[in-house]
Amino acid sequence: MRILISNDDGYLAPGINALAEALAPIAEIVVVAPDSNRSGASNSLSLDRPLSVQRAANGFYFVNGTPSDCVHVALTAILDYKPDLVVSGINNGPNMGDDTLYSGTVAAATEGFLFGIPAIAFSQGTYGWEHIDDAARHARDLIQRYYDTLPRPCLWNVNIPNRPYEQLNAVVATRLGRRHQSEPVIKAKDPRGKDIYWIGPPGACKEAGEGTDFHALAAGKTSITPLQIDLTHTSQLSALAKALA
Amino acid sequence: MRILISNDDGYLAPGINALAEALAPIAEIVVVAPDSNRSGASNSLSLDRPLSVQRAANGFYFVNGTPSDCVHVALTAILDYKPDLVVSGINNGPNMGDDTLYSGTVAAATEGFLFGIPAIAFSQGTYGWEHIDDAARHARDLIQRYYDTLPRPCLWNVNIPNRPYEQLNAVVATRLGRRHQSEPVIKAKDPRGKDIYWIGPPGACKEAGEGTDFHALAAGKTSITPLQIDLTHTSQLSALAKALA
Amino acid sequence: MRILISNDDGYLAPGINALAEALAPIAEIVVVAPDSNRSGASNSLSLDRPLSVQRAANGFYFVNGTPSDCVHVALTAILDYKPDLVVSGINNGPNMGDDTLYSGTVAAATEGFLFGIPAIAFSQGTYGWEHIDDAARHARDLIQRYYDTLPRPCLWNVNIPNRPYEQLNAVVATRLGRRHQSEPVIKAKDPRGKDIYWIGPPGACKEAGEGTDFHALAAGKTSITPLQIDLTHTSQLSALAKALA
Amino acid sequence: MRILISNDDGYLAPGINALAEALAPIAEIVVVAPDSNRSGASNSLSLDRPLSVQRAANGFYFVNGTPSDCVHVALTAILDYKPDLVVSGINNGPNMGDDTLYSGTVAAATEGFLFGIPAIAFSQGTYGWEHIDDAARHARDLIQRYYDTLPRPCLWNVNIPNRPYEQLNAVVATRLGRRHQSEPVIKAKDPRGKDIYWIGPPGACKEAGEGTDFHALAAGKTSITPLQIDLTHTSQLSALAKALA
Repeated sequence: MRILISNDDGYLAPGINALAEALAPIAEIVVVAPDSNRSGASNSLSLDRPLSVQRAANGFYFVNGTPSDCVHVALTAILDYKPDLVVSGINNGPNMGDDTLYSGTVAAATEGFLFGIPAIAFSQGTYGWEHIDDAARHARDLIQRYYDTLPRPCLWNVNIPNRPYEQLNAVVATRLGRRHQSEPVIKAKDPRGKDIYWIGPPGACKEAGEGTDFHALAAGKTSITPLQIDLTHTSQLSALAKALA
Repeated sequence: MRILISNDDGYLAPGINALAEALAPIAEIVVVAPDSNRSGASNSLSLDRPLSVQRAANGFYFVNGTPSDCVHVALTAILDYKPDLVVSGINNGPNMGDDTLYSGTVAAATEGFLFGIPAIAFSQGTYGWEHIDDAARHARDLIQRYYDTLPRPCLWNVNIPNRPYEQLNAVVATRLGRRHQSEPVIKAKDPRGKDIYWIGPPGACKEAGEGTDFHALAAGKTSITPLQIDLTHTSQLSALAKALA
Repeated sequence: MRILISNDDGYLAPGINALAEALAPIAEIVVVAPDSNRSGASNSLSLDRPLSVQRAANGFYFVNGTPSDCVHVALTAILDYKPDLVVSGINNGPNMGDDTLYSGTVAAATEGFLFGIPAIAFSQGTYGWEHIDDAARHARDLIQRYYDTLPRPCLWNVNIPNRPYEQLNAVVATRLGRRHQSEPVIKAKDPRGKDIYWIGPPGACKEAGEGTDFHALAAGKTSITPLQIDLTHTSQLSALAKALA
Repeated sequence: MRILISNDDGYLAPGINALAEALAPIAEIVVVAPDSNRSGASNSLSLDRPLSVQRAANGFYFVNGTPSDCVHVALTAILDYKPDLVVSGINNGPNMGDDTLYSGTVAAATEGFLFGIPAIAFSQGTYGWEHIDDAARHARDLIQRYYDTLPRPCLWNVNIPNRPYEQLNAVVATRLGRRHQSEPVIKAKDPRGKDIYWIGPPGACKEAGEGTDFHALAAGKTSITPLQIDLTHTSQLSALAKALA
């Protein structure tokens, strides 16, 4: 199996290193990741400037671009074959509910999915990298256990609780939960007295009931949410068609 | 009616100026847009640095951030009320099919939608701003004609052909089409001989049949695609639940 | 006379607008300036990405680059003639003493100087743009009065007190003063709890005696410091030569 | 001896790694360098956003800022002592003549100098890192041989030919040479058809006679140019004073 690995925390992050180390024994891996932290990058692509690709001492490629840029460049310029799987992560912190929209981790996997390759985004439920090696080993287990039966095409969003490997045994299929609207920006002053604004933390959970990713993680379980990327609001479509007729 | 206007082409773009001018007679408008072109920004948020807000001579606010940043800052720091509508655009070029995922124009509207406000993204079907004033007048018509009957919540993705106003009379409800995977990156050398990579153009249409936004624009019609943002792949969910059980 | 105007506060800054307005009656002017604030840019050049040039409604060109980039692009790509003078500013705040090294305003003038064109950097002694139109009118007077007798080549660093035009009558030739080392960085935490560091304010004056630019401004006078750009420490050179022999 | 090391090619560059390795046996070293390549940064300081400091596995600190930012943060926030020496480099390619003004390598050393610390900038005469370990060993020799007799304050700009260590035996005291004005920008089109401009290569030598750094390197010798940072054009000053009187 040949696996392309990317992320949004940058190629130096503990999460991508743990994932690469865990997958190396079961696959031929190539890592192509941003040169620095691009959290919150969503699906953004760099259209107004060219990208550079460099290679670190450990063989990882790094790109001065977004997660989507990295997978795009990897698939159309670095690799001369189509990998069997694109994985992204392991992210420092969760990507659940509406946050999935903003996630560079999910975006990297989505780019692979758009090229027709099965893709999985991995995130840890809590910030701080605790038990990251356990999460990586668990991620490898999931790939080994389910790769052959993945639907094609396939885009999975996986969130893993920060727990020792032995306690990572519950895995549930989930839907994305919902958040309340974000907290307001945080207004401050820079040292020269100018007003500045920091994007604030996400809002509290709004829909976190049974069956959601929020609910799974709160119960210490790994959530797998199968994703699709067609944003069409099918149920509003026919009413609109009537209104416009 | 109070309308917040943003875009991803930057506050100086002809599209946002035309839109602001067209809407000023029917609403109290506030413009908060990026300081420069942020096409391809998708839903990215600036988390690692603070934002600054400035005000241009014409009253437009501009922010050194992404489209999502702009709407976020507008709704939580600049405005002391909740606007009745968030509009984004008019974008220089189309936002249809899968491209919607990468679109900063749609992202700006999405940010408003996430705050519970009806939101509409407007784009022109062809690059180059031809007939932009006609498009803006047409956008105003759509708002006036449909605002009262919009479902709540509501997120519309509207693409308008580049035509004289008199020929903008056909409006259809559509679903998002699909593209083939993107063209490969374009490899070049910078003047110092270093390899550089430009993200290439989007792929050709793959699913552009009757009922899609691609089909509508090709026929010279305005498309309205109602969007939702829940990426859960509902139809794969139950199979996955069984597999994991 | 044909004058190229640039700055480091960006093409929208009050200082460059005042300067352009004051000079338009006496010269053919072209403005090429950064698209946004680039204070502290020093002589930096953008080598790893290409630049774009756009034109604003008022005819000003703006570039997504540094002050040095702007003058470089203007002289080698935008203008098809060699201007008679390059001016930069009027900067929001002083550029005196060691700060001159970090100044994008002085850097823009320096770039013109390196192309063999007389060049003048203008700054206001105090932040906040008070009396900016008076400063611009005073700058025009200086150009009209002294242009014909400027040494060739010539690079002037001019600081103007924030005063009504009638009180701008004292102009003195100065040397650069000296500052004590800068204040320490200001350590803070971003809203996610991460340590961040802001570059602090410049240090207090160390050498601000009679004859320095600091002394002139403190006395309400305009300072003109003629600059050169050869950093060779001539007086240390012969001792070093002996030591190495 | 305690040495602070920085550069402008980024903390991953071969030049800073070679220098750190060569100096570790003779001093307590701390490396604080940009997170990515900042060539051409000159003395620029980041004033509009805060900086982050991270630490790599090998103990090097890296900062999302310019060379000047790095040394500034190191001296006022990371180190709790004043180092005995600040060195910068070894740069990938020469910093001679007027180019010194644009050099981030020299700027990093200058920042140390402004804090009253002896400072040396090291560059290799030719791009490509050939014989970088030899250059680093030679740099160590220069420090060991001359540190005790350096004038205080002191700012040296050293360029080392790309040669085997055994052939690095000629060292001369030089003044900065001069270049002809830069080559014009290189105009190109991006893949979307938009005009873009690349800053072109530096001009040919204009003043490269005996005694200059250009001359020394052309003869296969290491050049040491003692620098000062007072840009006042002393010889024009008195004439100007008369003119203004």
